[in-house]
Amino acid sequence: MGKINFKPGTMLNPVPAVMVSCGNEEKHDIITVAWTGIVNSEPPMTYVSVRKERFSHGIIKENGEFTINITTEDLAFATDFCGVRSGRDVDKFKEMKLTPQPGEKVACPSIKESPVNLECKVREIHEYGSHDMFVADIVNVRVDEKLMDEKGRIRLDLAGLVAYNHGEYFALKRTPLGKFGYSVMKAKTKKRIAGERRQNARNKKNRKNKR
Amino acid sequence: MGKINFKPGTMLNPVPAVMVSCGNEEKHDIITVAWTGIVNSEPPMTYVSVRKERFSHGIIKENGEFTINITTEDLAFATDFCGVRSGRDVDKFKEMKLTPQPGEKVACPSIKESPVNLECKVREIHEYGSHDMFVADIVNVRVDEKLMDEKGRIRLDLAGLVAYNHGEYFALKRTPLGKFGYSVMKAKTKKRIAGERRQNARNKKNRKNKR
Repeated sequence: MGKINFKPGTMLNPVPAVMVSCGNEEKHDIITVAWTGIVNSEPPMTYVSVRKERFSHGIIKENGEFTINITTEDLAFATDFCGVRSGRDVDKFKEMKLTPQPGEKVACPSIKESPVNLECKVREIHEYGSHDMFVADIVNVRVDEKLMDEKGRIRLDLAGLVAYNHGEYFALKRTPLGKFGYSVMKAKTKKRIAGERRQNARNKKNRKNKR
Repeated sequence: MGKINFKPGTMLNPVPAVMVSCGNEEKHDIITVAWTGIVNSEPPMTYVSVRKERFSHGIIKENGEFTINITTEDLAFATDFCGVRSGRDVDKFKEMKLTPQPGEKVACPSIKESPVNLECKVREIHEYGSHDMFVADIVNVRVDEKLMDEKGRIRLDLAGLVAYNHGEYFALKRTPLGKFGYSVMKAKTKKRIAGERRQNARNKKNRKNKR
């Protein structure tokens, strides 16, 4: 068996599925976006690509700000809803029972139920055809306290995060395949990490039992 | 419990983890990239952000082409290796026993073991600081025949795809949380889809038994 050539298409998978909130107290909206990613590390920069005709497009263009809200298994239904319906017809915060939280460095509301919020300020807009790409600086990051462990580390592996794969939403498996650099890691380091993982699992179990 | 503010960082998760192949028959390389995504649907466009000092950076800039190779659980080790080691020191195709496949519309080799290859031609380079962003047109898509089902659909849900989450590689769970639009779907449509899913599972089982 070999490979089949297809006409060019957006076949990169999996990609993120995030809820992007925008606007201010009077006029706001949420749009679900899969066309997002990190474009630079120092300074931290991201983008969202949004169709010109979407309600959020005008709001982001007008205000030059948006907030990326990371999504979880619990938020999958709301994530889908915010990608299908238009803010012209429905207040998505109200309809999906999501709680707007005032931004720290931007005027647009964050989604309280999302474990991680990235507040962004638009730097450039590139028009590529169907979508406009809003390239932005990440100006503030907010993380749910529940995701911090005893050592002050952010435990996104426990957040139940969701990815978008070829038209469907998928949760990530609980146990990682490996850490960045594991392919060249010394046996000793690997052993230490495995030990820490077992200890973390025990801690988690103990915390649960104490409740 | 509330939320904690952190200094700006690249906290968007999960993101893709792809192997990007570049170059030609004489000089080629593979670099693993998490800073990638789709930026436009019509025409299909993507990007990869690569640090200026990486070996692949020069090759992509020189040739104006690259190929995105989607990664799987089986390719996780090679994916990590190609992100850590430099093509200046090691031939990553040889070292990881990956098979170069001639490109269809670009000179750079694809990775045969990857289930989906996206051949790309660079349109713009944006310099943002640590990384250069290569914005590109997707000019050809190649998919492994094994992923095509009886109805001619591409079954990426069966490919064992991998995402990158806060420094670790994770596989996706097998069963999706829902299809795009499921939050507004009629009960009848949902029932039909569930039936099809059961039938597909039975077909898969039968195929396995026949082997």
